[in-house]
Amino acid sequence: MNGLMMRKQLLISSLIMHADRHHGDTEIVSRRVEGDLHRYTFRDCHRRARQLANALTSLGVKASDRIGTLAWNGYRHMELYYGVSGMGAVMHTINPRLHEDQVVYIADHAEDQYIFFDLTFLPLVQAIAKRCKTVKAFVAMTDRAHMPEDCGIANLLCYEDLLERSSAAYTWPDFDEDIASTLCYTSGTTGNPKGVLYTHRSTLLHTFAAALPDALNCSSRDVILPVVPMFHVNAWGIPYIACMVGAKLVFPGPALDGKSLYDLFEAEQVTLSAGVPTVWQGLLSHVEQNGREFSTMRRTVIGGAACPPTMLNKFQEDYGIQVLHAWGMTELSPLGTVCALKAKQLAMPPEARQAVQSKQGRAVFGVDMKIVGQDGAELPWDGETSGDLLVRGPWVVRNYFRNEDRNPLQLDGEARGWFPTGDVATIDADGFMQITDRSKDVIKSGGEWIGSIELENIAMAHPEVTQAACIAAKHAKWDERPLLIVVKKPEAELTSAQLRAFYDGKVARWWIPDDVVFVDAVPLGATGKILKNRLREQFGDHLLGQRQH
Amino acid sequence: MNGLMMRKQLLISSLIMHADRHHGDTEIVSRRVEGDLHRYTFRDCHRRARQLANALTSLGVKASDRIGTLAWNGYRHMELYYGVSGMGAVMHTINPRLHEDQVVYIADHAEDQYIFFDLTFLPLVQAIAKRCKTVKAFVAMTDRAHMPEDCGIANLLCYEDLLERSSAAYTWPDFDEDIASTLCYTSGTTGNPKGVLYTHRSTLLHTFAAALPDALNCSSRDVILPVVPMFHVNAWGIPYIACMVGAKLVFPGPALDGKSLYDLFEAEQVTLSAGVPTVWQGLLSHVEQNGREFSTMRRTVIGGAACPPTMLNKFQEDYGIQVLHAWGMTELSPLGTVCALKAKQLAMPPEARQAVQSKQGRAVFGVDMKIVGQDGAELPWDGETSGDLLVRGPWVVRNYFRNEDRNPLQLDGEARGWFPTGDVATIDADGFMQITDRSKDVIKSGGEWIGSIELENIAMAHPEVTQAACIAAKHAKWDERPLLIVVKKPEAELTSAQLRAFYDGKVARWWIPDDVVFVDAVPLGATGKILKNRLREQFGDHLLGQRQH
Repeated sequence: MNGLMMRKQLLISSLIMHADRHHGDTEIVSRRVEGDLHRYTFRDCHRRARQLANALTSLGVKASDRIGTLAWNGYRHMELYYGVSGMGAVMHTINPRLHEDQVVYIADHAEDQYIFFDLTFLPLVQAIAKRCKTVKAFVAMTDRAHMPEDCGIANLLCYEDLLERSSAAYTWPDFDEDIASTLCYTSGTTGNPKGVLYTHRSTLLHTFAAALPDALNCSSRDVILPVVPMFHVNAWGIPYIACMVGAKLVFPGPALDGKSLYDLFEAEQVTLSAGVPTVWQGLLSHVEQNGREFSTMRRTVIGGAACPPTMLNKFQEDYGIQVLHAWGMTELSPLGTVCALKAKQLAMPPEARQAVQSKQGRAVFGVDMKIVGQDGAELPWDGETSGDLLVRGPWVVRNYFRNEDRNPLQLDGEARGWFPTGDVATIDADGFMQITDRSKDVIKSGGEWIGSIELENIAMAHPEVTQAACIAAKHAKWDERPLLIVVKKPEAELTSAQLRAFYDGKVARWWIPDDVVFVDAVPLGATGKILKNRLREQFGDHLLGQRQH
Repeated sequence: MNGLMMRKQLLISSLIMHADRHHGDTEIVSRRVEGDLHRYTFRDCHRRARQLANALTSLGVKASDRIGTLAWNGYRHMELYYGVSGMGAVMHTINPRLHEDQVVYIADHAEDQYIFFDLTFLPLVQAIAKRCKTVKAFVAMTDRAHMPEDCGIANLLCYEDLLERSSAAYTWPDFDEDIASTLCYTSGTTGNPKGVLYTHRSTLLHTFAAALPDALNCSSRDVILPVVPMFHVNAWGIPYIACMVGAKLVFPGPALDGKSLYDLFEAEQVTLSAGVPTVWQGLLSHVEQNGREFSTMRRTVIGGAACPPTMLNKFQEDYGIQVLHAWGMTELSPLGTVCALKAKQLAMPPEARQAVQSKQGRAVFGVDMKIVGQDGAELPWDGETSGDLLVRGPWVVRNYFRNEDRNPLQLDGEARGWFPTGDVATIDADGFMQITDRSKDVIKSGGEWIGSIELENIAMAHPEVTQAACIAAKHAKWDERPLLIVVKKPEAELTSAQLRAFYDGKVARWWIPDDVVFVDAVPLGATGKILKNRLREQFGDHLLGQRQH
């Protein structure tokens, strides 16, 4: 027997309507490509999103058509988030840091009808314009005065022109919540990118869960600056969360250096931010070198890669900013876990508490997780045993877009129906999960697993180290042994032996890396993560060579 | 085109599974009918809920069967919440303060198969046992040692016996989220009670929204004591919220006097509570008279009736406890609005801030609201214009149980599809709603509306007044005029003229009540609200009489 409550669909348009109606005068502040700051309100954003929906309709865009973007975090991108999904089309954010061949592959695979781009990416658009098979026109997200001339793109439109000639009279359509709302391709390090096709339902449920007190903890009193890009998993959901709770939004545009971010944090009284560790490193360096303080920042969410304990301590102890370590994936919308402490952990001594906080945290309600062995059987939550991390839930992918033949959930036995994250993790008795490795990065030394992340965190704690990556190097006797690739601080003097000695007493002896290779820089992927497969290609035989000499 | 995310159903069983897995050692503390305190954990609760599901199955309970309860807030009631709904049957909480005829009407109308009851309500069960047409047995929520003897109930079972002989091996079934989970009858002051039939979906969505930072703001660091009863709109959702976020629960059982509550608050380190104003009055009196302080309480949610400004100030200014004024209804699961301040209001001078806080607050995301005139057209959000309050959303009723012919949403014009709350309210430009009256309590003086709640709040602010109710009394010239019914403090000396003079300068002259009637007590309904219809029956002609003399 069914219940008798209203069967209202969960739709993205309801978020911007709520923000307009209940937080109409709350600001959205954006640093533009042009360099200046743009300010307007949720009410303005909603009006322009409606104009955009009319503009798209007049361009012939229909329900479920894919609309691509190559854009920074900014108000026009926000209008696209709501205008495109709200009208029933699919908002397709493309990572502009990808190689142009991959961008073409993605746009073709998605069958994008239009691509909207920030002027920064004009060279990229010039390179791909003639190659994209389905794109009817490219729309420069700027006004007539800033339109590029003679750029060689035949089908070029101007964003502000489109809006100017479109009415704001538009009623968001009502449709089933399982309709696709958004498309984002994973920037996998191997093979072609794969598309995750979110639904209105998955987005709304994720937004509820992500705003909870033990997740990102967002209220109408927050000012949120997402450093994490809107072209990468919806900026971790922040454009949606802000509308749900009525928080002020600050978009940094292309200016992601430490100084630009810090100045914006202070000028706009930001209380909460979110990003990957590499971005925070730049920010912290700027603040340290200039003896600054954070006057309004309260919390920062760190994810995308493990947050080194030294960074966690610096934020919390030196600057009084709470770090929320988090873990997610494109396939999870992205939020899976957040490391919010439990009551009993608040009273722990600082070191024990920091040890908890260095874990990726507890599953947010809605996400089920478990770790399994190679036979697919569940492993214990003892904080020691590591296994493949599997997840499921209403905002977890069930298949990739146009990928019918290779369903990722076709696992064996008890694991069937769960999504294999590709991460290796432990889970403790309180449900705190800690990533020990990507399954493809695990170091298998004599049949035993060594976690590369823990070894990297120790190296990062050394005062002379700027960046560290630990890879599996081939080894004649043990099959694989840990090798450390390190970027030293400028003018630091540090030898392999000194750094290896730094591990004494911190890990089991057989975990200590066999050698350290010092490099000027490590290769980073399009989302700021270290490309370990490149390092393995380059240095994988390093230990074999040593043995032979 | 549908998206490609997992289509996992939103089910109540997922809440208790999450609480077990992630917060297994978090406590549930209950004061029992027997007087002692009972302590166990979410893990224990889940195990016993599974035993209960097996017990119910062995009793022949099938999907969608209704299971009634007459019980206080306690752990066994919690087990029923999860065991009954989790197995796909319908948890039907009955208000034991209703007249026995109404209880029989409700049990018959719901076609309850079993009724579970706390021993307190044995006399009620004795009175109704033979009258309920569909009930196969009554289950006393106690152990064998406390079972009543020779009580004259032929079909009597023992709760702990049922559990003892049932295995904990039970897998919660998977089914559609629109299936009915819970049934609660409104205790309307006129006509027969009407049943609201919640779904698993509506319950889960309400739980997400209610736990948000700008709603009840619940985390795993909270200790929540719901004073609001589990027999009345699911204790405002707290039994579900606590599982979603992993908060410790403290159930007060039948001991709702000021001293018992205060002692429990302190002993169990309660951080958050929720209840109606009348309960808080008893608590505050106890604390004041004994010169106590609250050492862990941080927030209290006050709803069910308007919170008098004097109470709000006392909590906040004298005890440092944040008051969250809220508004809801059985038909809304119940949460509609919560008065969480916006950033710009934090800097207001205290009086202006308190004026905002005395409103019922902003709609939680998911609830749409509007005020309309008699023609059904929407009225402006100016904080002045009052109109009939309409709501809609995924946890709002679309019809009452077995009420097919009288759909409450069959309104005219633009109001069609919205639920008419029966409340009259204003909404200001920031979206803060304030109830000015129940539509049936509005005083229509010479065609103009006078809000009875504002007049009551002023009377309540008078130091000699304990309780005040304002009703529409018939009037020869103006049709209706406000009449105040007042309970004085013990030994207070206060005349009608003195109290009426107290209104000078606080409201327009024509709003001042024509007279004051002093009484020893006002009649309260089953949920603690003043029964104004009774007062109107008794005193409605009071002013006519005056004029004639």
